[in-house]
Amino acid sequence: MAITAEPPPQGGSGASSTRRLRLDLAYDGSGFHGFAENAGVRTVGGELRQALERVLRQPVTLTCAGRTDTGVHARAQVVTIDVQGEAPELERLRDALNGALRPSVAVWSITEAPPDFDARFSARWRRYRYRVLSAPVHDPMLAAQLWWVRDALDGAAMDAAAATLVGEHDFSSFCRRPDPAASLVRRVHTAGWSVAPVTSEATGGLGSDGSIWTFEIAASAFCHQMVRSIVGALVHVGRGRLAPSAVAELLAARDRNGAPNLAPPQGLTLWEVGYEPWPGPAD
Amino acid sequence: MAITAEPPPQGGSGASSTRRLRLDLAYDGSGFHGFAENAGVRTVGGELRQALERVLRQPVTLTCAGRTDTGVHARAQVVTIDVQGEAPELERLRDALNGALRPSVAVWSITEAPPDFDARFSARWRRYRYRVLSAPVHDPMLAAQLWWVRDALDGAAMDAAAATLVGEHDFSSFCRRPDPAASLVRRVHTAGWSVAPVTSEATGGLGSDGSIWTFEIAASAFCHQMVRSIVGALVHVGRGRLAPSAVAELLAARDRNGAPNLAPPQGLTLWEVGYEPWPGPAD
Repeated sequence: MAITAEPPPQGGSGASSTRRLRLDLAYDGSGFHGFAENAGVRTVGGELRQALERVLRQPVTLTCAGRTDTGVHARAQVVTIDVQGEAPELERLRDALNGALRPSVAVWSITEAPPDFDARFSARWRRYRYRVLSAPVHDPMLAAQLWWVRDALDGAAMDAAAATLVGEHDFSSFCRRPDPAASLVRRVHTAGWSVAPVTSEATGGLGSDGSIWTFEIAASAFCHQMVRSIVGALVHVGRGRLAPSAVAELLAARDRNGAPNLAPPQGLTLWEVGYEPWPGPAD
Repeated sequence: MAITAEPPPQGGSGASSTRRLRLDLAYDGSGFHGFAENAGVRTVGGELRQALERVLRQPVTLTCAGRTDTGVHARAQVVTIDVQGEAPELERLRDALNGALRPSVAVWSITEAPPDFDARFSARWRRYRYRVLSAPVHDPMLAAQLWWVRDALDGAAMDAAAATLVGEHDFSSFCRRPDPAASLVRRVHTAGWSVAPVTSEATGGLGSDGSIWTFEIAASAFCHQMVRSIVGALVHVGRGRLAPSAVAELLAARDRNGAPNLAPPQGLTLWEVGYEPWPGPAD
């Protein structure tokens, strides 16, 4: 995502007017090759940076809380940028950005942040949600937002398996490891499933009975493909193809080759980023 | 949508085995040029007919309850077809079609219907819903399913205006008239708005306050572009640009040139088709 920054303003005025801004935003990841800028493909970060540069008339470098992958959504991504010169009017800046980024990206709010606030390094935890529709027939209006599986899922088994992931573990079995030296130890605060029946609102009462399963996981941080890899394993458990205890064994093995396939990206949403210590009980 | 039907089976077996099937289906209209087949463009009817012909290995002619326009969705479209020869196993047929039509179209169910049941001519009423998001910021995950307007809307004014449409009227002011001789008299059974706050589930509590307004209208039948034209006028009222009483005057004028712009298609969904008399009080 590096861009060639212009040289910082030279001497003269002693009081350099740099402001750090925090952007809270959402996006439908369907049409994007993820957040991080990448030459030749459409990315959320690329479109956001270009819109910011057009509106602010200066080069901009983005820092984001969570680099979501191709097809993954965000309800609450956080980005910080530094802006030189005159303070922009923040609500007007938000509206100008939204005019440029509609309909796939929405900037909820822009606020001034302390100079040491960093969207990525100040984050203390991240929360993701993954949604699965378990029903005999898929749902066209939800197709871009969840993973459809035909089978019924065993929630108690999926929850038992998810519970074994809570705590500090080496998640090598569930992560892509681009750098062999990088630590894949992460602290998972919560991991569990909830379920809601598919209502007649959604299907007109015509679809056969189904359920929307939502997996919520919060952790200090996530390594690459971690949530989708975990969901792939847990849905395997829910379908009865893997014992709940096998997930703990998989984790202990620290070997990615043992893990079931990744869950597809469209079910995953970056749900929340926390900048205070995790509020729950110590785990 | 006409296709060249093969000649009916000749003599010999006196008992011709023609079965009429009823399909209940939903679709995300975003990627389609409407339901009705049209050369050179992707239509719901075209994809459904082709899938049926591949699976059933015979030419098929579709009859549908409501020919939705480009970009309009359906939660509960009804289609009838005639099938020759051996009776297909209906759940298997449904699953085969869904395999071919995923993700944008879903067939909820297929049932055998009496020979005189016709998806279009047996229908006694249709119900549409139109959704409007009124909020300072749009919502990426709902962008393909509703019309975003920045302004606050006056629900009482919109309801007062909608109430003047109930009953039997000539809807020339709100319909495209392809055939000058066609009657545009329709009976509207109900027309009104409901509202729900935008929940923190939807926006992460980060979007500014907003509301999702849902317009529901049921009528004996609808002429072309009628719901979108009515919604365009009612939202004009909701924004305070038109007095509620002006909608009745517009209706009485029977002149389409007086009507405000059409509401965009993505907010509209064919919600339900009724094959029994309208159950509500006589209007």
